[in-house]
Amino acid sequence: MKKTKNTESKLKVIPLGGLEQIGMNMTAFEYEDTIIVVDCGMAFPEDDMLGVDLVIPDISYLEENEKKVKGFFITHGHEDHIGAIPYVLRKIHAPIYATKLTMGIIDHKLEEHNMLKTVRKKVVNYGTNINAGPFRIEFIRTNHSIQDAAALAIYTPVGTIVHTGDFKVDYTPVYGDPIDLQRFSAIGQKGVLALMCDSTNAERPGFTASEKTVGKTIDSIFSEHQDSRIIIATFASNVDRVQQIINSACKFNRKVVVEGRSMVNIMSTATELGYITIPENTLIETDQLKNFPDERTCIITTGSQGESMAALSRMANGTHRKIQIQPNDTIVFSSHPIPGNEKSVGRVINELCHKGANVIFQDVHVSGHACQEDIKLIYSLVKPKYAIPVHGEYKHLQAQSNIAKQLGYDSDHRIIMSSGDILEFDSDQNAKITGKVHTGAVMVDGLGVGDVGNIVLRDRQRLAEDGIIIVVMTLAAENGLLLAGPDIVSRGFVYVKDAEDLMEEAHNVLIDLMDRLQDQHVSDWTRIKNEVKGTLSDFVWKETQRRPMILPVIEEV
Amino acid sequence: MKKTKNTESKLKVIPLGGLEQIGMNMTAFEYEDTIIVVDCGMAFPEDDMLGVDLVIPDISYLEENEKKVKGFFITHGHEDHIGAIPYVLRKIHAPIYATKLTMGIIDHKLEEHNMLKTVRKKVVNYGTNINAGPFRIEFIRTNHSIQDAAALAIYTPVGTIVHTGDFKVDYTPVYGDPIDLQRFSAIGQKGVLALMCDSTNAERPGFTASEKTVGKTIDSIFSEHQDSRIIIATFASNVDRVQQIINSACKFNRKVVVEGRSMVNIMSTATELGYITIPENTLIETDQLKNFPDERTCIITTGSQGESMAALSRMANGTHRKIQIQPNDTIVFSSHPIPGNEKSVGRVINELCHKGANVIFQDVHVSGHACQEDIKLIYSLVKPKYAIPVHGEYKHLQAQSNIAKQLGYDSDHRIIMSSGDILEFDSDQNAKITGKVHTGAVMVDGLGVGDVGNIVLRDRQRLAEDGIIIVVMTLAAENGLLLAGPDIVSRGFVYVKDAEDLMEEAHNVLIDLMDRLQDQHVSDWTRIKNEVKGTLSDFVWKETQRRPMILPVIEEV
Repeated sequence: MKKTKNTESKLKVIPLGGLEQIGMNMTAFEYEDTIIVVDCGMAFPEDDMLGVDLVIPDISYLEENEKKVKGFFITHGHEDHIGAIPYVLRKIHAPIYATKLTMGIIDHKLEEHNMLKTVRKKVVNYGTNINAGPFRIEFIRTNHSIQDAAALAIYTPVGTIVHTGDFKVDYTPVYGDPIDLQRFSAIGQKGVLALMCDSTNAERPGFTASEKTVGKTIDSIFSEHQDSRIIIATFASNVDRVQQIINSACKFNRKVVVEGRSMVNIMSTATELGYITIPENTLIETDQLKNFPDERTCIITTGSQGESMAALSRMANGTHRKIQIQPNDTIVFSSHPIPGNEKSVGRVINELCHKGANVIFQDVHVSGHACQEDIKLIYSLVKPKYAIPVHGEYKHLQAQSNIAKQLGYDSDHRIIMSSGDILEFDSDQNAKITGKVHTGAVMVDGLGVGDVGNIVLRDRQRLAEDGIIIVVMTLAAENGLLLAGPDIVSRGFVYVKDAEDLMEEAHNVLIDLMDRLQDQHVSDWTRIKNEVKGTLSDFVWKETQRRPMILPVIEEV
Repeated sequence: MKKTKNTESKLKVIPLGGLEQIGMNMTAFEYEDTIIVVDCGMAFPEDDMLGVDLVIPDISYLEENEKKVKGFFITHGHEDHIGAIPYVLRKIHAPIYATKLTMGIIDHKLEEHNMLKTVRKKVVNYGTNINAGPFRIEFIRTNHSIQDAAALAIYTPVGTIVHTGDFKVDYTPVYGDPIDLQRFSAIGQKGVLALMCDSTNAERPGFTASEKTVGKTIDSIFSEHQDSRIIIATFASNVDRVQQIINSACKFNRKVVVEGRSMVNIMSTATELGYITIPENTLIETDQLKNFPDERTCIITTGSQGESMAALSRMANGTHRKIQIQPNDTIVFSSHPIPGNEKSVGRVINELCHKGANVIFQDVHVSGHACQEDIKLIYSLVKPKYAIPVHGEYKHLQAQSNIAKQLGYDSDHRIIMSSGDILEFDSDQNAKITGKVHTGAVMVDGLGVGDVGNIVLRDRQRLAEDGIIIVVMTLAAENGLLLAGPDIVSRGFVYVKDAEDLMEEAHNVLIDLMDRLQDQHVSDWTRIKNEVKGTLSDFVWKETQRRPMILPVIEEV
């Protein structure tokens, strides 16, 4: 028997990440006893998260409601939408739904974590509908800087929500078809409760250019540099970009080498699944480069963001085992630096220039995200009742909210959410933020998930800033007499061999202190430790104006 | 008796910094027994220089030749040209020559370091010539993002070198006169050996816009936001920018508050020396803000680069003691983010938006550096024999070298130098790099100058990455028996309260190890320490895939 619609029940939209930063995209949709989750992304650590490898959303809310969770619906295969899957799916046992290439990339990730056999998955075609309790979810074709991207129409008892995922409007994509604007329009014509739309480029006026325009630029670079080796760095996951580079290479009769682990991985997935077409006898191994004249070769590589361990960075600083930069090389950055990476990209460019290479780093890229006019187009097709900007920092969300304002949405129908907000829609389609669930960033460091918290980070920051001084001494258990020490060891504070006087003086200061404490028969460890900390800290500040961490350790015999 | 020109003697040009990065500008010119130095700047630490406050050039070469050094000639008052003065002038006793405002800023710096009375100084007017041994130095008026900027004509027995300092071509400067193009031309007409020209904007096509264009933009912002408080962040040292903001504020009948220590300092110097004109009853104290309606006030503040301790950042994160951001505030960034600061600027913008402020951060700034067409103009007036790009990273120097190439300079007459290179000009004006002097970056941390080196930095990086584990034990002096410990203390590794099992296991691993070593009567401390390090490191890696620093400390009783 079909459940009748309960007018008391509400649709809850709960973003668990992705609204304070680029990355960590994850949103829960809840109705009665069903939760579906859109995307499951990671973020890169902020500058002050020292030693942290990656960050994932805190999913306490899903854990508390695990039985309700009926599925993860993934919009596309970028790390900020899939990167948390191996960590989240260990705790929440629900199936993953995604398009073919997206699932291929997820499979690779699950395999690395030995989870390929334990996670349920279903590859979805555009237009297919998945039922999950009271929800029905339809995948809609979009364009993005990775193929097989999808928007989602989420049909709920309260109304339809359209979630764009990351998208652009590309009328002439390299692979596959343009975004399915007719479908957006058809869904819009039936009435849409809310549009959750990508805000990444909401600050940028105009339209985002087609990926194919980059192909023309790459062609002209090949045409203008027929006498040198060409090395092109781009995002590993941008298979269409790689396809276009390979097309140009073939056209200009060059062999192609693919460098960098992530690039090789994605290429292998894309080739296997038929998302890239490489003519025979085009790809060669790095070792074979020496068999061809430079001007007959092209290297496609990772490292377009100046990542220190990526292939291009290692070529630039001379630590790549197989490829040396030569004075005549033409090196192309087919990318823009992501905010925060400008300096490391600049460093790599300088190193490459210094080695005599000709570096091209402007205008060989287009964005994968919709600009202002594209966003207006989607709003005009979908005509949602509510505008809920997603994907971006606050300023991006606000920029999209301003676009919606220009389109006539009043402030009651433009909702800027924060992660953790519970946005409720009642059966009359009234919207209200009614509360907050626990969210946050869980730091992953090596095998540890969440064991690095604020205290550990604060210690790392302190250690990074001025180092550590350790004071060790041995006391007699019976009477508290000083048997050995105090001995001073430091790391990251000063170069001890050049600071013997300072360390000697510090030692004397501590000996004086201990003499005094022993005279006073002080045997309380806490007091001794505090006196050591205070005295040494004052001395060090006076002498150096630094504040190393001071760590007294007492042994008892 | 005047010395006759020695045809054996050579002019040496030796950059001691400034050619690998933006910052640390300093170049020595040497002829026989005379050295003059142009600029004496600092640089901000790179990301991997943890805990370092600032970086100055290694001046070993000047110290070794101190008697030869006849003066420091400073082109303008920015930190990357004057910031090392307090450190360098402590070691090298030679007079400083600079224009009035530049010297005012230097004076302030010397005062902070208690050196005002010990350093010889001479304020120089444009057109004035200073004799220093065989050198004659003339200051030439230029424009820049700080007033009183100068290029230098350095007349030497071998020929004339023109050094532009940082400059732009501004036909309509806010204060004072345009760059003295006629003087550049006149010097050029007499023949110039080499032009050392600012490369900062050599990658940018076209011309740099006049500072006055920003004034118009600021005026229109004031005109469009007459109902809200206006807060404008800009560079403290850009007095002309501050002047224009004050002009707009007066025009629109607003009181002005100046916030941020460095802004207040420069304003006081500029006011005292007559470089800024503030109508009476315009400036008010921060405390007086409450006496005026918001729309009658304007706050000019530091923090345009997102610096975490600057006034605007404190307003944004709610820690400013006197100014709270309000939903109706209009906040203007009259600046571009310097490469590397994009993320912190973005963070501040997000915080301000989140508080409901209207943030304007695009197109309210012009650069202080010459673009490609301006650079071509200077080359065309000076017509040097050699082009020697200065001020910038390698890619900037190369971009200027390419401009010179377009202007017809062959590769023998375009010289890209590295810091430390000795470029020699003989009496026939032949140029040759003949060797290298010791240069480098000296790190300043608190009171320590140069005591933080690579070993300390490496330790800090390691500590920052995964923290430290300290293992303490007490051994008997007579027989090496373990009397106490091993005890384990960690910082920045894991949150110990949540990792009791791990720490317990680590402890057991060490007890087993010590049992084994004691059974084998091992009493060699080095061996014990190495075994502790190796065993614990393996255990920790296996359990966590982290590599904290492991520091065994042995006490002897």
